[in-house]
Amino acid sequence: MSGSAWNHEEFEARLRERGKAYHIHHPFNRMLNEGRATREQIRGWVANRYYYQIAIPVKDAAVLSNCPDRAMRREWIQRILDHDGHGDDAGGIEAWLRLGLAVGLAREEIDDLRHVVPGVRFAVDAYVNFARRAPWQEAMCSSLTELFAPKIHKERLASWPEHYPWIESEGLQYFRNRTTQARRDVEQALAVTLGYFTTRALQEHALDILQFKLDILWTMNDAMALKYGVAS
Amino acid sequence: MSGSAWNHEEFEARLRERGKAYHIHHPFNRMLNEGRATREQIRGWVANRYYYQIAIPVKDAAVLSNCPDRAMRREWIQRILDHDGHGDDAGGIEAWLRLGLAVGLAREEIDDLRHVVPGVRFAVDAYVNFARRAPWQEAMCSSLTELFAPKIHKERLASWPEHYPWIESEGLQYFRNRTTQARRDVEQALAVTLGYFTTRALQEHALDILQFKLDILWTMNDAMALKYGVAS
Repeated sequence: MSGSAWNHEEFEARLRERGKAYHIHHPFNRMLNEGRATREQIRGWVANRYYYQIAIPVKDAAVLSNCPDRAMRREWIQRILDHDGHGDDAGGIEAWLRLGLAVGLAREEIDDLRHVVPGVRFAVDAYVNFARRAPWQEAMCSSLTELFAPKIHKERLASWPEHYPWIESEGLQYFRNRTTQARRDVEQALAVTLGYFTTRALQEHALDILQFKLDILWTMNDAMALKYGVAS
Repeated sequence: MSGSAWNHEEFEARLRERGKAYHIHHPFNRMLNEGRATREQIRGWVANRYYYQIAIPVKDAAVLSNCPDRAMRREWIQRILDHDGHGDDAGGIEAWLRLGLAVGLAREEIDDLRHVVPGVRFAVDAYVNFARRAPWQEAMCSSLTELFAPKIHKERLASWPEHYPWIESEGLQYFRNRTTQARRDVEQALAVTLGYFTTRALQEHALDILQFKLDILWTMNDAMALKYGVAS
């Protein structure tokens, strides 16, 4: 926590370096994307991850409710519109439900959260509670796991049709949408992070916040691995 | 707090009856709308009321962040889009700033809140804090002062051009927008209120919540009257 502040390039590089702890490397996720998962494991993942999906607009509304900067809100609100849907767009949560149908779950069993394990619930809730309490710049910083998201979505799009031909291709639309949305979203969060955490101590704090969010995603996978097992 | 629940018609009638305490009847507002206000008093009102305007999207984001019902959020978010603006629409806060310019204030002196008196600040903050803590249905109920808003806006549109010809007509656009927006907004809040407060005790509680919001608007006017005076 000492030393002079990193310049933007160096700070961004250190943020990106944390991608090594992204859950793309988690054994449960690797099993899914390398084609070693059973239908039961895929269904378990989709049903559990739904709890994260429905928490995201609530989290983003908490960020807005802490943000007195109108220009920032005008950009950030797009995330809620994307997830909840707006006008003719059914939105990301609905796209996730369609993924659930495509992998053989009933809409009701996804929606009533019966499959969601406590460890997933607690991890997701920790994220929402952080966004409620933290300064909005910190909450925006915590979303920077999106730096690493396009790659994990692309892996799914590349490998799932081959390994799991029983999943209708239409069900994967969520991943297609997010490869572009996540790229756009991350720009605002990165600009805010680079501009707000301006001392070395603050920059280290930003890395801790990003690690906290990485831990949330990793722990969700731990909890699912414990419940559904991991093929070796 | 006893007796059987009112039916929807009766409950709605009792909510509407509270309009007798709407600040349309406050001496300060009556002075404004009856053409007895000085430029100083009008400027004071516009600058102070700006603090309410900028609090509204934050308040509505707090409502969203407490609301797990996606369909409800999809409707309610329109309020934030209306106030903050979205796409080509500059939004209600910007329209209010233009009203400020039209009455002779500089953008900077509105934006930096230098004219906002403590009593106005505390009343508005009480509203935002209520929305942060209360169940979303109660927060929606508290917005029902919008039942009475179209009339107050129409009064302004009818009387201000006559009494205050020095205010450019374009500056009154905010009031024009809100006569239609408030009508649409109130439908959702009223439907939620009628559907959620279903026992007599809950219905009495809803009336208390509405009264709390009426008190906020009234107290803002008290604070402005104390600062800027009221012509008799």
